[in-house]
Amino acid sequence: MPLFTEHASSWRDLRALPCFAPALPRLTPEFAPTENEAHRYEVVIVGAGPAGLMLHLLLARYGLTDKSLLCIDSKPGTLKSGQADGVQPRTLEVFKSLGISDEIENEACQMWEFAFWNTSDDPAKVIERRSVVPEVIPPARFPYEATIHQGRVERIMETDLLRYSQRGVLRDTKLVSLRIDESADPEFPVIAEIEINGIPKIIRTKHLVGADGAHSLVRKSVGLSLEGQSLDHIWGVVDLIVDTNFPDIRRRCAIHSHAGSVMVIPRERISTGEYITRLYVNMPGVVEPGSAGADADLKKDAKGNRSKVTLEGILKQAQDVFEPYYIRPKRDDSIDWWAAYQIGQRMCPEFIVKDSSGLGRVFIVGDACHTHSPKAGQGMNVSMMDSYNLAWKLAYHINGLIPLSSTKGSPSPLLDTYNTERHANAQQLIDFDRKFSSGFSDKVGTTESKSGLSHAEFVDLFNTGCGFTSGCGVEYVENLAVERSVAYGSSPVVSGDDFLSGILRPGRRLLNVKLKRFADGWHRDIQDDLASTGRFRVLILLSTDLLNPTGSSATALKATTNLIQQFPSSLIEQIIVHPRLSGEITWENIPSCVKEQAEMSFYNGYELEDAHRTYGVDPARGAMVVVRPDGYVGVVAALGDLARVEGFLERIIKRV
Amino acid sequence: MPLFTEHASSWRDLRALPCFAPALPRLTPEFAPTENEAHRYEVVIVGAGPAGLMLHLLLARYGLTDKSLLCIDSKPGTLKSGQADGVQPRTLEVFKSLGISDEIENEACQMWEFAFWNTSDDPAKVIERRSVVPEVIPPARFPYEATIHQGRVERIMETDLLRYSQRGVLRDTKLVSLRIDESADPEFPVIAEIEINGIPKIIRTKHLVGADGAHSLVRKSVGLSLEGQSLDHIWGVVDLIVDTNFPDIRRRCAIHSHAGSVMVIPRERISTGEYITRLYVNMPGVVEPGSAGADADLKKDAKGNRSKVTLEGILKQAQDVFEPYYIRPKRDDSIDWWAAYQIGQRMCPEFIVKDSSGLGRVFIVGDACHTHSPKAGQGMNVSMMDSYNLAWKLAYHINGLIPLSSTKGSPSPLLDTYNTERHANAQQLIDFDRKFSSGFSDKVGTTESKSGLSHAEFVDLFNTGCGFTSGCGVEYVENLAVERSVAYGSSPVVSGDDFLSGILRPGRRLLNVKLKRFADGWHRDIQDDLASTGRFRVLILLSTDLLNPTGSSATALKATTNLIQQFPSSLIEQIIVHPRLSGEITWENIPSCVKEQAEMSFYNGYELEDAHRTYGVDPARGAMVVVRPDGYVGVVAALGDLARVEGFLERIIKRV
Repeated sequence: MPLFTEHASSWRDLRALPCFAPALPRLTPEFAPTENEAHRYEVVIVGAGPAGLMLHLLLARYGLTDKSLLCIDSKPGTLKSGQADGVQPRTLEVFKSLGISDEIENEACQMWEFAFWNTSDDPAKVIERRSVVPEVIPPARFPYEATIHQGRVERIMETDLLRYSQRGVLRDTKLVSLRIDESADPEFPVIAEIEINGIPKIIRTKHLVGADGAHSLVRKSVGLSLEGQSLDHIWGVVDLIVDTNFPDIRRRCAIHSHAGSVMVIPRERISTGEYITRLYVNMPGVVEPGSAGADADLKKDAKGNRSKVTLEGILKQAQDVFEPYYIRPKRDDSIDWWAAYQIGQRMCPEFIVKDSSGLGRVFIVGDACHTHSPKAGQGMNVSMMDSYNLAWKLAYHINGLIPLSSTKGSPSPLLDTYNTERHANAQQLIDFDRKFSSGFSDKVGTTESKSGLSHAEFVDLFNTGCGFTSGCGVEYVENLAVERSVAYGSSPVVSGDDFLSGILRPGRRLLNVKLKRFADGWHRDIQDDLASTGRFRVLILLSTDLLNPTGSSATALKATTNLIQQFPSSLIEQIIVHPRLSGEITWENIPSCVKEQAEMSFYNGYELEDAHRTYGVDPARGAMVVVRPDGYVGVVAALGDLARVEGFLERIIKRV
Repeated sequence: MPLFTEHASSWRDLRALPCFAPALPRLTPEFAPTENEAHRYEVVIVGAGPAGLMLHLLLARYGLTDKSLLCIDSKPGTLKSGQADGVQPRTLEVFKSLGISDEIENEACQMWEFAFWNTSDDPAKVIERRSVVPEVIPPARFPYEATIHQGRVERIMETDLLRYSQRGVLRDTKLVSLRIDESADPEFPVIAEIEINGIPKIIRTKHLVGADGAHSLVRKSVGLSLEGQSLDHIWGVVDLIVDTNFPDIRRRCAIHSHAGSVMVIPRERISTGEYITRLYVNMPGVVEPGSAGADADLKKDAKGNRSKVTLEGILKQAQDVFEPYYIRPKRDDSIDWWAAYQIGQRMCPEFIVKDSSGLGRVFIVGDACHTHSPKAGQGMNVSMMDSYNLAWKLAYHINGLIPLSSTKGSPSPLLDTYNTERHANAQQLIDFDRKFSSGFSDKVGTTESKSGLSHAEFVDLFNTGCGFTSGCGVEYVENLAVERSVAYGSSPVVSGDDFLSGILRPGRRLLNVKLKRFADGWHRDIQDDLASTGRFRVLILLSTDLLNPTGSSATALKATTNLIQQFPSSLIEQIIVHPRLSGEITWENIPSCVKEQAEMSFYNGYELEDAHRTYGVDPARGAMVVVRPDGYVGVVAALGDLARVEGFLERIIKRV
């Protein structure tokens, strides 16, 4: 029988809770509106779809309280009729960095393979499988694309949000009007009229973010509009439980037959134990793509054409394309959701509206600033990544973590990089989608192919597009937060140019590698040290001279430790990775700052995977890398080139 | 701008919820007590620690409703002062099979290595590290031991429980007395007096499970007692945030110095960002182990000795053992919890109390039937595994899924196997703990060593014990649910005897292997097809003749499909794994029953890992394996030997 005498601290119970992300330091005064000022906010988010929720969650985690931050949505609850279902590998990495990827990892459908079906030369077969390729080609922590109902993705974020925000999303609340007026209250120049359960109220805010979808009232209110091609083929889309003898029904498929085109998207298992399938069906009676501008008539025609689409029509057309295989709903109640849609590729010329001083006041994210077809599974992902890009910049600005600007006409150049980075990214998306979507609508590999794409060309388009569509190949253009210039007279710190496979490249996300931690032998993923807590990381890839107390590694370690202490406390973290060395490491034979400052982020970088090789760094020379709060590489420097790291950091972060 | 016309089924919202486990079929009438019978239950669980919660969660998932199932606990909430912190690899596999492992995977401390420190021959060093070995030696899905506060483990189970049980645990409710009386109401012979918030109530139940800890009132009430050695050395244990220059503080360590023995258990990171460390400190002033029986005086002495132990004394003794390194609390408030304890190795001679017909009515699980020292990190694990073993057997009995018994004197021989299997397992635990614990208390490798254990012998004890302590090497004795006899005249179906590395062995858990699913190319873990839903699985390891329509593989597939349909619907699932074949598989060139019955559990078993080789099965011959609902192998048969599979199943499951 156990005999205990025990004593527990009262605060011990807290440890039965999961961990919280630590808030960012705040150098500006705490935002504390008086009772009379309760209508004032620092940030208002309009719309709680994936983009709005992602922004709300991040800002709340960074420390903005319910007094400072308000998110409104006109709907009474999370999504009822969402269209998106694809979660890309990079999005999964981000969810993992937020600690909210588990449900998707466990319960989403994982698409590992993409099968291409075309008309067969053998008339008896009608169609045949031409090839199967991996769904995700670039190296990624999660080597698959996940599909799951958008409503679940929203619920996952909202559940986590409620750990950080008591109010959560203010539902049943719609935006009525919006304007920027600096005259009355220049600190809170964004004035919005909202209706909470039908009751009107005027609120004022420093910043407002429009995450209110393709029909964005925010966008319209600030005089922006979507530009570009507006209409496309009519597609039917249906989510159902199928009964079929088509052999690849559980793979993502592009089927091009003489009868038309279908895309198959396998979906998650549901509570009945059955699996959903999504079909995108190109509907006959094509509307020719229109051009920008006066498309009111086209729209009207289109609406008329769409209204002719019926569920029976979609299923009939799908059956024609699947011939000689049969495909039908498993039972009468097996139809989950269906729709007819036409989406062209359009985007906003600007994602930020500034005040007279040049400070960004209204930001547009997600569908509100770019629309495109759903077939490449990008919508929900790109929208959330807009917010993921904006969130830390906005928080740094509000918390006073950025230096006073020396850029003429731009009081906060870091905020401006949201537009620089995400506008270019949206343009790439639009361009890719136009090619992929029209390539897909055509009868690839048949004599009727209008675009002239052969089967091989279409597969090639998919493969080269994979870097982009997986999210893993996204590369931001050079700007304040992406420094690519090469130091004068030096030889390159990084060799290789296969950036998709991990070679360091400012503007791209840091690829995951497996490392073995020195302190405890734990096999860890480097991305787990890049948690989305708003912190910068200096990744030091040490050189082979670590055991030399006056070598470049030791010098760099001491200098970096010293540098970090010149910035706000906890804002910059170190990750230290050593290559294979000639001798054994002990805590005593390396600089003491390693144990003092980075005991739990000091790694053996060669035993599990070769970090230096993956990143293109010579172990004899080493390198320093600044990784931004969103996991993207900001700058790469030689181990001895502290000035380059310092210069980059001090352009973005205020010294203390 | 996207233009949609959409239509959604009203039940679609349900898909925004995580999946639920499907209940077991029930052949007995639904348990529906009238209002007058509201004091009657099918199962009552006393105690909601890890063992009680595991049982409650499993039975609720299997379909027992709040009317049928009651769990009471005298405490007002989850654990405040729990001692256990170790989650073993096998326990993690089980948590994964329940879909509740994520928080532990993400937030527990992972111990990957065990360092052994001893007195040094160099007097200046005092102590030195002799070796570092992996913490977990046998192959396991999770190659580490996790440490996390017991209160979190309980919270994780309770949170999930509330998805299946509206009431959850009935708190503030204690057992007052308990007896078995078949005279009044023979169907509900277990009569318990309980107090709910101090208000007494009499309840009756078919079965009662005592999960009420080492001082179990259930055990005492049914006339059982713990037997064996009762006292041991006095140990101090303290959870704290340390300040130390000891280099292995983040590894599990056994330190044996001239000054005494300490075990270091690194623990999880907490919300402050700091890491907890647990120290087990052997306190000087040893009490000699007593013997069973009249130990009242010893207990009294022991209590007196324990009361002399202070926090300062524990920290002082720890500091002496750590010399020349310093170790101290990081701050004044860095002590989380501390205790002094003495625990011998004792266990109950029986874990089941039966009625006059021989039917098990009262079951004892966890600490209530075995106690031992915490140093091997077994307590919480073995306790939960008791419940994991009992739950499906109890549910099968209650739901009428077992055949009428032909065993004389035992109306439900399946229930009896709980005692057979877990009593033998507890005995192994007790034996191991006695060796490990006393070996640990001694000054290993010093001239003062009383047990005479050398350092090498102690490390060896740890290594050989690892199969057991990891939970991965547990092997149940032969019984109704573990069939090991070899078919007459046949050559062995399985070759090899390294069962710890995966060779099939009835009575051991099926080792995880990675498989590639045929239908979609998804890389999956076979254990994910062994979800803890109470189902049996027939694992068919096909032979290389699969493409021969009259070969042994095709014949076995058809015969098994036919056999399964003779048992209650959904109760037996198939997992089908093929070896490398001479030709390509299509759905058309294999028996149609594969797609019809096992489309999503049909795997390529050689491309990712070699399943046949791991399991010791010749691909030229194949094999069939029955895996029990708890993941343990029940029987192994040749591909052609359906009778053996059938014989095994029909002894446990009723035919329909």
